[in-house]
Amino acid sequence: MIIKKTFDESEEIVVSKKEVCHVFLRLFVLNCLEKVSCSPAHAQQLADILICSDYRGHYSHGLNRLHIYVNDLAEKSTAQDGEPLIIKQKGSTAWVDGCNLLGPVVGNFCMKLAIQKVGIARENGIGWVVAKNSNHFGIAGWYADAALQHGLVGMAFTNTSPCVFPTNSAEKSLGSNPICLAAPAQNGDSFFLDMASTTVAYGKIEVVDRRGGKRIPRSWGADADGVETQDPKEVLNGGGLQPLGGSEATGGYKGTGLCMMVEILCGIMAGSSFGKSIRKWQTTDENANLGQCFVAIDPECFAPGFSERLSCFLDETRDLKPVDPSYPVQVAGDPERAHMYMCDELDGIVYKKSQLEHLEKLGNDLGVQMFKAKKMNPQGLDEAPTSRVH
Amino acid sequence: MIIKKTFDESEEIVVSKKEVCHVFLRLFVLNCLEKVSCSPAHAQQLADILICSDYRGHYSHGLNRLHIYVNDLAEKSTAQDGEPLIIKQKGSTAWVDGCNLLGPVVGNFCMKLAIQKVGIARENGIGWVVAKNSNHFGIAGWYADAALQHGLVGMAFTNTSPCVFPTNSAEKSLGSNPICLAAPAQNGDSFFLDMASTTVAYGKIEVVDRRGGKRIPRSWGADADGVETQDPKEVLNGGGLQPLGGSEATGGYKGTGLCMMVEILCGIMAGSSFGKSIRKWQTTDENANLGQCFVAIDPECFAPGFSERLSCFLDETRDLKPVDPSYPVQVAGDPERAHMYMCDELDGIVYKKSQLEHLEKLGNDLGVQMFKAKKMNPQGLDEAPTSRVH
Repeated sequence: MIIKKTFDESEEIVVSKKEVCHVFLRLFVLNCLEKVSCSPAHAQQLADILICSDYRGHYSHGLNRLHIYVNDLAEKSTAQDGEPLIIKQKGSTAWVDGCNLLGPVVGNFCMKLAIQKVGIARENGIGWVVAKNSNHFGIAGWYADAALQHGLVGMAFTNTSPCVFPTNSAEKSLGSNPICLAAPAQNGDSFFLDMASTTVAYGKIEVVDRRGGKRIPRSWGADADGVETQDPKEVLNGGGLQPLGGSEATGGYKGTGLCMMVEILCGIMAGSSFGKSIRKWQTTDENANLGQCFVAIDPECFAPGFSERLSCFLDETRDLKPVDPSYPVQVAGDPERAHMYMCDELDGIVYKKSQLEHLEKLGNDLGVQMFKAKKMNPQGLDEAPTSRVH
Repeated sequence: MIIKKTFDESEEIVVSKKEVCHVFLRLFVLNCLEKVSCSPAHAQQLADILICSDYRGHYSHGLNRLHIYVNDLAEKSTAQDGEPLIIKQKGSTAWVDGCNLLGPVVGNFCMKLAIQKVGIARENGIGWVVAKNSNHFGIAGWYADAALQHGLVGMAFTNTSPCVFPTNSAEKSLGSNPICLAAPAQNGDSFFLDMASTTVAYGKIEVVDRRGGKRIPRSWGADADGVETQDPKEVLNGGGLQPLGGSEATGGYKGTGLCMMVEILCGIMAGSSFGKSIRKWQTTDENANLGQCFVAIDPECFAPGFSERLSCFLDETRDLKPVDPSYPVQVAGDPERAHMYMCDELDGIVYKKSQLEHLEKLGNDLGVQMFKAKKMNPQGLDEAPTSRVH
């Protein structure tokens, strides 16, 4: 059972998928990137992943971040054109120089390589590719999904700018370092874990604060001295995130361990920046030089019937008796599926009106005309500029 | 800086490492296992890992569990002799049938194979081995450490009997499924993560209860209906553990995701039992048929200088300004290092007196004479039966 997500007319707007999103919205993104001299082929890759993030409901990694990529390109802190380089490789492994290109360009290159390394005849079974000199790559799930499309188990990891207080530390030194594993079940179903190794993302704390909330749950964040706090303003004003688990008593040292594990698979293996040395979020005075790790595994190297067993496991989990029948047990990927289902039913992507205003402002700054969002009413498509599609 | 652990004379006893532990204690374990027809070679492997667990301070996985292995062997729910079989393999991968042998026998076989798969000339770079039909393998860190000894990054995972309530579930369906990654730094230092994907182990809740504690922190456990509770007795009487993060609001769904990720790498890949279908803890009416996963990676496949960078990262983390100077920031593996350091200083392994009494009782049941623990005083070695060593 998938929990249905509902559309909020007062705050949200539907950007028609077929006719606006795939044409006008996309074109707007491409036009913005063209203004900062981004290679058209790279711009396409970035547009794909940002729009996909919004479709999956991960707005924090979607078009909301377009201005950051634009700024990096404008400041030339991200390279506007070029191609990643394979520095060394073996049958199953490769080390790649991302050449400071856009994260999605590096990520797509590396995951494609990892899938190739599994082997056309699946002769290797595993591909493990590590990249240095990369940039923010968006949602890790995008890359894991590419492996999934080949019937493979996919994993993707990246380090990020420091925003996390390790257990007992008064200094932020770790990123929100995501852990992502996607595995193919039957009939298009999948296990799809794509999680920051923090308890929550900054965005969740910002939402509480913006809505006037005075308290966040324990284990979400810490104040500027690294002390756990339940005041969202203390987190947002110079504080930072707590690792999954929160403080030491509630297992936060395990979240710290996971966060460091991801850093080891990324920055330490890649020979990129790592830990405290990664530039601060949204600065451009030095290159990000992020480290990233992409893994593809053919499950048929092991017991036959992987996807059947996985379907069993997923369904057995969803069918568990819930504590409260209005909150059925979900598996990793179900909330995103619910969001995509809602979008599909509305035949578009749901955005907050404020998000489209943010995009319009970016367009104004760059001299790019916003697509005709103003013509759309809250109900969605009726006034969408279909006449402009052809 | 390593936080020093101190020896508690009132409750603890030192079993001299050189003279008692390596001879008498070990002999006692081997004699117990002989009584239940365990192959001597297998008994050696089990004794090694159990004593190592105690040395590292992981008593919950050490000699405290000897009676469980003994019982499994006595009931023939674990095979007393035999050898694991490789069912299929490629350059970097193998699928192994553990033939229902003792977990450490299967684990040692598989990790050795994973290390071999990396290649003598490191030509493959990765070894990934998955086993079905295994049993409890003790601390996952034992296997990751074997890779570490070859300068490799080691990972080990296992599924376990259901004891965890997935987020929103009123039924326990997942094990405490450990995540373990060890990576070699310089001068014998390492990153050594070996964590259950629950907030805490049962043992920690038992300790609170035994000491008369009435409250445990949130996110440790749930009552028999799956509802988070702070009453240790509710957890212990038919309740269960919560995944890392605790309830949904504090990120428990991420812990659930990690727990399921491990199950996918183990039971689902291996074609063993998985999830709810794994037999209950300490029952022997059916075989455990656990799934396990062992990975070895040569970090030199990627950027040269891995161990130097890792040392930097570990030291940078340990040197972070702490919130409270009496609790310096530690990295995964430091608490175990502190415990081993204390043991080394005392020239032995520290046991609770109650643990040795538990062993003596097991010995009595099996007709195996306990080694001369009674001759030792709480200060340790003076009265140890050195005359018996030769």
